[in-house]
Amino acid sequence: EIIDAIAAFFTESGRKPLAGKRALVTSGPTHEPIDPVRYIANRSSGKQGHAIAAALAALGADVTLVSGPTRLPDPPGCTVVAIETAREMLAACLAARDAAVPVDIAVCAAAVADWRVAGASDRKLKKDGGGPPALALTENPDILATLSQAGPRRPALVIGFAAETGDVVATATAKRARKGCDWIVANDVSLGTTTFGGTDNTVHIIRADGVESWPTMGKDAVGARLAEAIAAHVAD
Amino acid sequence: EIIDAIAAFFTESGRKPLAGKRALVTSGPTHEPIDPVRYIANRSSGKQGHAIAAALAALGADVTLVSGPTRLPDPPGCTVVAIETAREMLAACLAARDAAVPVDIAVCAAAVADWRVAGASDRKLKKDGGGPPALALTENPDILATLSQAGPRRPALVIGFAAETGDVVATATAKRARKGCDWIVANDVSLGTTTFGGTDNTVHIIRADGVESWPTMGKDAVGARLAEAIAAHVAD
Repeated sequence: EIIDAIAAFFTESGRKPLAGKRALVTSGPTHEPIDPVRYIANRSSGKQGHAIAAALAALGADVTLVSGPTRLPDPPGCTVVAIETAREMLAACLAARDAAVPVDIAVCAAAVADWRVAGASDRKLKKDGGGPPALALTENPDILATLSQAGPRRPALVIGFAAETGDVVATATAKRARKGCDWIVANDVSLGTTTFGGTDNTVHIIRADGVESWPTMGKDAVGARLAEAIAAHVAD
Repeated sequence: EIIDAIAAFFTESGRKPLAGKRALVTSGPTHEPIDPVRYIANRSSGKQGHAIAAALAALGADVTLVSGPTRLPDPPGCTVVAIETAREMLAACLAARDAAVPVDIAVCAAAVADWRVAGASDRKLKKDGGGPPALALTENPDILATLSQAGPRRPALVIGFAAETGDVVATATAKRARKGCDWIVANDVSLGTTTFGGTDNTVHIIRADGVESWPTMGKDAVGARLAEAIAAHVAD
């Protein structure tokens, strides 16, 4: 409640509590090529990540948004870097992290593909009567874990997302420890929920000191509330 | 040249040469689920298929457009059936074919996934430390071949598309014979071309009596010229 009160104060006062802070936000899906025409994708619309980027910019942060393919307009006040694959997203994030001005806040909201196709083909795979091709997968780089690694360039606050089915809070709590990030925003993407692609979101904020479960609200509202919580944390 | 002259006559006169004809057009990619959040897709934008549907409707045809996920608005004057997977597209096409009013013209412009994932998971696949999952693929139904099968409900004119790399005309000519369709519209989707997703297209029309290569033009213009060629053929 204290954090909420501070956040409400910032918002109502029109102050820019994140002025002078640099934020890196990832958003959207990644597309991992199979051949020149096919790829593996996921149902992320980018709405939540873009909303967070816009909300951080509205609070005064200098925001770099690294985004996979979405149908969304660029959020106002953000520098947008468009990428397709997880490896391209990692490269863009590291370029931002290692730029002259360090990143204070990193929010990894993108739904990065865990795997890519090993040895994607330069030619379109054909039905040749010999049965379907084998799709050998290989693990993609872990962008959240990479940004969470200790070091002089580590952002002071690294926030990951967990898109989970099943026991969402328990799985996301384990993910927070495994990745080494500071907060995890966990949401339920089971079949039947409309989190992926929809306009609403129901999230749990998992921090070292416990779990805060927010009511279902629009992704814009989640973005605003998260940006306010970030501003309150940074002000501590 | 005779066909072109007839087509130009139709267009300039404002006549509706396809009035009373029913057309089925497929467009866009299909999305084949891997698990609740991931899927296999392809780079089809749906621009060419949607342009053909609009052009056929403009010439008076009663058009049913069966389309995978695209960013495009519904073309004017068409009945649009939205699907995601190849199996859903086949079902929608067969429903149209077997409706009370038979289909006279079928244009299969969709980039249907050749393969889907066998046994797609109900739960999100996780990185469990045991290495990437094996993605077993299985062949999807062949919508063009199905619509081309002889029978009382076969449309009088069935047109397929071939998105090829390499020797485009030879490969598409073989495809025409293999599928049993009447015409193939072949285009080159090699890396470096912008056919997939772009606004222009360079096509070859492969018929029983030979190959007609059209100059590069906008996808709307390809759609209009193809609709005119269809109208000229139907008028024969």
